[in-house]
Amino acid sequence: MTDKSTQPRVLIFDTTLRDGEQSPGATMTHDEKLEIAASLDEMGVDIIEAGFPIASEGDFAAVSEIARQAKTAQICGLARANFKDIDRCWDAVKHARFPRIHTFIGTSPLHRAIPNLDMDQMAERIHETVTHARNLCDNVQWSPMDATRTEHDYLCRVVEIAIKAGATTINIPDTVGYTAPRESAALIRMLLDRVPGADNIIFATHCHNDLGMATANSLAAVEAGARQIECTINGLGERAGNTALEEVVMALRVRNDIMPYRTGVDTTKIMAISRRVATVSGFAVQFNKAIVGKNAFAHESGIHQDGMLKNRETFEVMRPEDVGLSGTSLPLGKHSGRAALRAKMKDLGFDLADNQLNDAFVRFKALADRKKEVFDDDLIALVQDSATNTAHDTLQVKRLRVVCGTDGPQEAELTLSIEGKDHSIDATGDGPVDAAFNAVKMLYPHKARLQLYQVQAVTEGTDAQATVSVRLEENGAIATGQSADTDTIVASVRAYVNALNRLIVRREKAEMGYDTKGVSYKDQG
Amino acid sequence: MTDKSTQPRVLIFDTTLRDGEQSPGATMTHDEKLEIAASLDEMGVDIIEAGFPIASEGDFAAVSEIARQAKTAQICGLARANFKDIDRCWDAVKHARFPRIHTFIGTSPLHRAIPNLDMDQMAERIHETVTHARNLCDNVQWSPMDATRTEHDYLCRVVEIAIKAGATTINIPDTVGYTAPRESAALIRMLLDRVPGADNIIFATHCHNDLGMATANSLAAVEAGARQIECTINGLGERAGNTALEEVVMALRVRNDIMPYRTGVDTTKIMAISRRVATVSGFAVQFNKAIVGKNAFAHESGIHQDGMLKNRETFEVMRPEDVGLSGTSLPLGKHSGRAALRAKMKDLGFDLADNQLNDAFVRFKALADRKKEVFDDDLIALVQDSATNTAHDTLQVKRLRVVCGTDGPQEAELTLSIEGKDHSIDATGDGPVDAAFNAVKMLYPHKARLQLYQVQAVTEGTDAQATVSVRLEENGAIATGQSADTDTIVASVRAYVNALNRLIVRREKAEMGYDTKGVSYKDQG
Repeated sequence: MTDKSTQPRVLIFDTTLRDGEQSPGATMTHDEKLEIAASLDEMGVDIIEAGFPIASEGDFAAVSEIARQAKTAQICGLARANFKDIDRCWDAVKHARFPRIHTFIGTSPLHRAIPNLDMDQMAERIHETVTHARNLCDNVQWSPMDATRTEHDYLCRVVEIAIKAGATTINIPDTVGYTAPRESAALIRMLLDRVPGADNIIFATHCHNDLGMATANSLAAVEAGARQIECTINGLGERAGNTALEEVVMALRVRNDIMPYRTGVDTTKIMAISRRVATVSGFAVQFNKAIVGKNAFAHESGIHQDGMLKNRETFEVMRPEDVGLSGTSLPLGKHSGRAALRAKMKDLGFDLADNQLNDAFVRFKALADRKKEVFDDDLIALVQDSATNTAHDTLQVKRLRVVCGTDGPQEAELTLSIEGKDHSIDATGDGPVDAAFNAVKMLYPHKARLQLYQVQAVTEGTDAQATVSVRLEENGAIATGQSADTDTIVASVRAYVNALNRLIVRREKAEMGYDTKGVSYKDQG
Repeated sequence: MTDKSTQPRVLIFDTTLRDGEQSPGATMTHDEKLEIAASLDEMGVDIIEAGFPIASEGDFAAVSEIARQAKTAQICGLARANFKDIDRCWDAVKHARFPRIHTFIGTSPLHRAIPNLDMDQMAERIHETVTHARNLCDNVQWSPMDATRTEHDYLCRVVEIAIKAGATTINIPDTVGYTAPRESAALIRMLLDRVPGADNIIFATHCHNDLGMATANSLAAVEAGARQIECTINGLGERAGNTALEEVVMALRVRNDIMPYRTGVDTTKIMAISRRVATVSGFAVQFNKAIVGKNAFAHESGIHQDGMLKNRETFEVMRPEDVGLSGTSLPLGKHSGRAALRAKMKDLGFDLADNQLNDAFVRFKALADRKKEVFDDDLIALVQDSATNTAHDTLQVKRLRVVCGTDGPQEAELTLSIEGKDHSIDATGDGPVDAAFNAVKMLYPHKARLQLYQVQAVTEGTDAQATVSVRLEENGAIATGQSADTDTIVASVRAYVNALNRLIVRREKAEMGYDTKGVSYKDQG
């Protein structure tokens, strides 16, 4: 093993909760954001971009709360280039032990045209806003949005202004996912060469994956002198997403021989947070996704290894354990006790409080009655389900009976508890899912539209549990619901009701103006 | 628009049917292989690696038939470093207008250890086998497997031997997905500098995506002098997959300013073949996959664009039309006629024969009766379903009635036609899917194990069709089944029966030794 302690450190800046969460449909609840932030903090992410505080009361509350709970990570909020945004951002992040303000403006010709500022006017705006941010906080990051399409001379000029005004990190975003490694490196090198004061600040790289090169572009920037990579778990983000945290971190580890830089990330936490982000965002990871896909490690694919393969290294450059995939572990069964469950959950990265363990144990026993072997993935689905569907939700599924098949119309009988009171109804529909969802709609009328419906078996075998994800949209507000059950139709209705419960919370908050994203980072205010 | 005609041409070598199909579970039927090959040929792929002829009778038959049907593409088969493999490969590809033999051996220390050859013995083997291939075919590709982990001096030595023996293409595989762009480029540059005769042959790059850099590594190799990229549709392949064809082709198009190379690929055919490969392989593409993901183009996400975004280029570097995504098109309804359906299907890239159109029209009418608006994605699901489930299958679902819900056990009544004769049964199970699959198992006993079960709504709305994918494994043989229906349970059983039908075909062929992959490319024979 190389001694890495003398290698330059690359800071990992995670923006799953800001740029990732912005992805259409990936909206997360307050509690989910707090949970993800805690995991990022614990795994050793250096800076967590927790949200865009001016965007809504909900964003503000999440950033403030994450700032309060953070242990070692810096907590960063996003702000456009105006005093109001920056003040609001500071009000949220100031609770952190290590707060950071991140302010930005689009500097390319296309982006300058939006607020209709000429080069000099924009330069002046940058000077004023960065100065303002620096007067509030000694840790200020500034980004020239669409940097990769900004004229080089102008980019040097504005970066110099931001540094002089006190920015301590300069982030160079490839906003449209347009660059390639040589170009990405050359841009950082040019800035380091040409901009006075560039030696005293940290350059960051922020890439998008539109052409499939975000990881390589980020690492090329590091080789050229950038010392912060902005990324998201699973590469979550708009369009083709952001740089994937797991890819850059593992590439720096596996190829430390040619890229001698170290990060502070505990890679064994990768799989647990990847699964969690996939669940709460509703963005499933494809089988052949690098590092975190189901097939990424050959031996995980459920297929017997070729008999010839005595030496795993022949076809593998990483060990599954490195990213937190445990080896083959024994399944639990109906005779497994509470202690075995607690130990197993701890192995899987879930530290359950006593009441959570009790709830999980009841559900585990029910599952073990129906399913001979309860695998790791079953347990993950089970605790995630209980974290998602709780006893204080407005709507709760009490009883469901569905008749379906080739002879339609399909019928559903549903008993739904609404604010503690049971209501029952019969409904028909075009398929069992439609019939059951219609029953919900009749008992609890609403206008939400189903945007996404997907089902995934949790393990192999026909008796496997299925995880259902449902995404609903109502007046621009989006909520994702999840549930797992061996009865896919029951899981479907629970996931649908779960999404509705979230919409209800959102609706209440919206009435208070709490959760309406009044602005987007794309509005150059 | 730049005049690209004078730019160096980069050959696109597609190995979806060989390295992609090898991915656990991605096995395709003979007809599917022929269909995919025809699409690749039509979209302008230069070389199609159609299979590994020695692996099984099925592989041999597929390569032979693809060779016969190919119009402009070169048809390539894979062969290990022995005369028997090479002869068998030639027997399959020789039917093509432009045949190619691709032979290889693992040259890294780890791979040399497998056949237990020392450097000199392996060099001799390479000389003999490439000479033998060249005596059969004047278009010979040779690959040193695991080239990126082979000693540079030895790599130069064996590449020189292969060139002297008559190889016309030398492919440099990054078998374990280990390299990074600078290194990938340096390797090609070194070979061009050091190997006598390197100017007269074409260097190819073959990357895997284990660290998320396959696309950048391939393009870096091109910048260094490689003139052939090996890739697969959707990046299909073992572990994290191969380089994605759509990414390298679109990157060369979008960034032609800094990477001035042209390909012969008609990019507007990308979406159609991507969808088809996702369906037949059972490997869904994640929402945020570059180029072909559902969210890759902002306006496709079903979310209203930000009002500020007057200019699409502000956040998009590609137009959806460039990859064959049509703009918003009007849905069909119950009054739409046969001509409208035919025109629409043509728009969507499906050129239906009369009997196919008739079948599709019947199913379209049935769907339109249940669903007010029939969208493009519905029609794609519908024709893919009829291509998949045909009247001459051994098993056919005649009638299904399922009762499920919270009160279990769930029950299924099934009528299944087996070789033309109807059989009925009642079964129970752990969930409606388990109950229905149990009914199938009781009527048609088998030992196949369910490896994968997933459901995806085809469009938005609770009345949407669902596409179900099922993967079964029996004695190492794998088959994927698909079906679409507004009743997810009906679609599930049809998909399951479809997978079984394929296993039956496979089993019959296996009895004749037809489809058993006796060898893997990993066996260094």
